[in-house]
Amino acid sequence: MTQILDGKKVAADLRESIKAFIQKKQISPHLVVFLTHSNPASSIYVKNKLTACAEVGMRTTLIEQPASSEAELTKLLASYATNKDVDGILIQLPLHQNIDTKYVLQQIPPEKDVDGLHPINLGKLVQADPSGFIPCTPLGICTLLDAYKIPIRGKHVVIIGRSITVGKPLALLLSQKGKDATVTLAHTATEHLEELCSSADIIVAAAGTPNLITPPMVKKTTTIIDVGINRVEGKIVGDVDPSVYQLCAAISPVPGGVGPMTIASLLQNTLKGYLAYH
Amino acid sequence: MTQILDGKKVAADLRESIKAFIQKKQISPHLVVFLTHSNPASSIYVKNKLTACAEVGMRTTLIEQPASSEAELTKLLASYATNKDVDGILIQLPLHQNIDTKYVLQQIPPEKDVDGLHPINLGKLVQADPSGFIPCTPLGICTLLDAYKIPIRGKHVVIIGRSITVGKPLALLLSQKGKDATVTLAHTATEHLEELCSSADIIVAAAGTPNLITPPMVKKTTTIIDVGINRVEGKIVGDVDPSVYQLCAAISPVPGGVGPMTIASLLQNTLKGYLAYH
Repeated sequence: MTQILDGKKVAADLRESIKAFIQKKQISPHLVVFLTHSNPASSIYVKNKLTACAEVGMRTTLIEQPASSEAELTKLLASYATNKDVDGILIQLPLHQNIDTKYVLQQIPPEKDVDGLHPINLGKLVQADPSGFIPCTPLGICTLLDAYKIPIRGKHVVIIGRSITVGKPLALLLSQKGKDATVTLAHTATEHLEELCSSADIIVAAAGTPNLITPPMVKKTTTIIDVGINRVEGKIVGDVDPSVYQLCAAISPVPGGVGPMTIASLLQNTLKGYLAYH
Repeated sequence: MTQILDGKKVAADLRESIKAFIQKKQISPHLVVFLTHSNPASSIYVKNKLTACAEVGMRTTLIEQPASSEAELTKLLASYATNKDVDGILIQLPLHQNIDTKYVLQQIPPEKDVDGLHPINLGKLVQADPSGFIPCTPLGICTLLDAYKIPIRGKHVVIIGRSITVGKPLALLLSQKGKDATVTLAHTATEHLEELCSSADIIVAAAGTPNLITPPMVKKTTTIIDVGINRVEGKIVGDVDPSVYQLCAAISPVPGGVGPMTIASLLQNTLKGYLAYH
């Protein structure tokens, strides 16, 4: 029987513990979200994030205003960047195609950068400096693996996809001392992907390619984390071929796996931002 | 016949081209080196760095003064950090055991951080933002592989050792789009290291363990980069067992491989620091 790594349940538990903490301490961290480039998926993500914040007792402000240049976005950002009542700032990606995303991410004060994408936070992740913010999806994946006590020390984790939101920070996080996984970062140019995956103890599929993970890549002992979000014939599917589900030891499914964990990790980061400066 | 990746020669060519550029432009970049914790190896490294700078026409200042607290070192650093005539600042590691190295590295202005260890430069490496400084040893290894046209795109590179000076930044660098290697970061906790290495196209040994790389880990097609610097019976040896030399396709030896490349890369970074702000 394949074990389902139930992100929905683990995320609900995490949200519950954050809610209890916030109530006990009688605090109300404040997250500001910028939605500057209209896109149906982004709107849904933002709505889910705001709802989750409200449910645990956090305050939110949504700045929904189109921006098509760095100057416009930086101007929108300015007053929130310096406002001491703002604990976290999140700029929903992707941005308008004319905007240099790296430049904009650098305009968020690192101590409010709850998405963990400012270079100083990514650099702290390289240094294993716990004072930084860890990007939400990698953080959520680690929490999920922890919750199910999946061993990672010394194990071979193959991550497919080298984005700065998932693949690269997850590779850094799992390689850290104390976690001690052996991590391979694979991507579109990787040769012999099938062979590589079949040697893995854990496969993290974050390529955004439906049916990328197929039966020959998987053993009975493999744990799979599906991070894909692909729209196929109006349905959301991950990167893992459905026939793989019954062949592996454990799987975090799409939907109901990493998605809810990412949002719960955002709450965790916002609370961390609040606590670091209060 | 095993090909020797002659770091001494490639580094000499690189230094020559930097020297020619500096002469042509009639400039003289200025590097300041802090040696605050006495240690025979550190003294030799610093001397080699200063000599290399002088030979290409760069100016150097050596601040050789013991510091056993963050406050002392930060104070030493202060006037050089703000001095516009200083293009690069390097704090020789390791520091005194009482000092938090991460804290001190953050006090170097990122635009003078020629060792590339400030979190903002490490973070830019995660983002593949070319405006940052890349740590000297990883940069030198890439230049050496390039010089010998060793293919890396799609190839499997196994790096052993997860330091912030070598293993982690090299993994990030080789994984970038355009370089496109498939990188595995291995370390002391890695299980089945022999099997993992035997599947590699390129092995980078940066563990600081003599004789770590043994014949069963190597194929006739393997390229090996030895980054180890170990003192054994008064001699400097790398991480690769000597019996491996004749079994692989190519090897960067110790000494005469990565060491000179690291120093040449420091010159490259110092010149980059100068050019970015003049």
